[in-house]
Amino acid sequence: MAPKFDADGLVTCVATDARSGDVLMVAHMNAQALQRTIATGEAWYFSRSRRALWRKGETSGHLQRVVEMRIDCDQDAVWIKVEQEGAGACHTGRRSCFYRAVPLGKAGAKLQFVEDKVFDPKAVYDK
Amino acid sequence: MAPKFDADGLVTCVATDARSGDVLMVAHMNAQALQRTIATGEAWYFSRSRRALWRKGETSGHLQRVVEMRIDCDQDAVWIKVEQEGAGACHTGRRSCFYRAVPLGKAGAKLQFVEDKVFDPKAVYDK
Repeated sequence: MAPKFDADGLVTCVATDARSGDVLMVAHMNAQALQRTIATGEAWYFSRSRRALWRKGETSGHLQRVVEMRIDCDQDAVWIKVEQEGAGACHTGRRSCFYRAVPLGKAGAKLQFVEDKVFDPKAVYDK
Repeated sequence: MAPKFDADGLVTCVATDARSGDVLMVAHMNAQALQRTIATGEAWYFSRSRRALWRKGETSGHLQRVVEMRIDCDQDAVWIKVEQEGAGACHTGRRSCFYRAVPLGKAGAKLQFVEDKVFDPKAVYDK
């Protein structure tokens, strides 16, 4: 394994729901996050906005248990299939961060909300 | 819709197989690739290595028809569910670019090949 980290020392990580197959989120891992994810079987990321290592669910309790990890052909992206603890992965309160659909075939169409909130982000994050 | 393009003018795109749910590839789209994908319902990307707009399958014939497009909470990543034309999406000849598993629980373990080749990349690309 020879991950190809970018100029910021990161690889892209796609997390999918091990049961439904839905994409839950796209985030990034630095070498330490990748190492900890492999060692512990729980998802660790690197937050680009906070410039900090981030154990998924540290605040919310919504941990992700990694069922399988794969790496792509050029080793700059990993795919983890996870069992999502708690109601959801998204900080907005949805199960998936991809809760809006983009209509095809017409430019400038409005996004369509296709997933309801499954938890109250205020109650979960403002503890 | 207000995509948040990065410093290079790109958003990340995850393409999954509309039937199996497997992640086929992770690539990037600039504004033009995104607009063409929405307009045509076929996947267009921007190749960072070739610095060029790239119609998926232009050379190989392995087009991707977009069944659904979603955008994530901070609008810097899109997820497309695709019907993959031809045998596969990966330039190495596999259906998915994620054809190697990373063993969990042990540091430095060797990658495991979990997908066989489904087409001969030489025959497809060296025409």
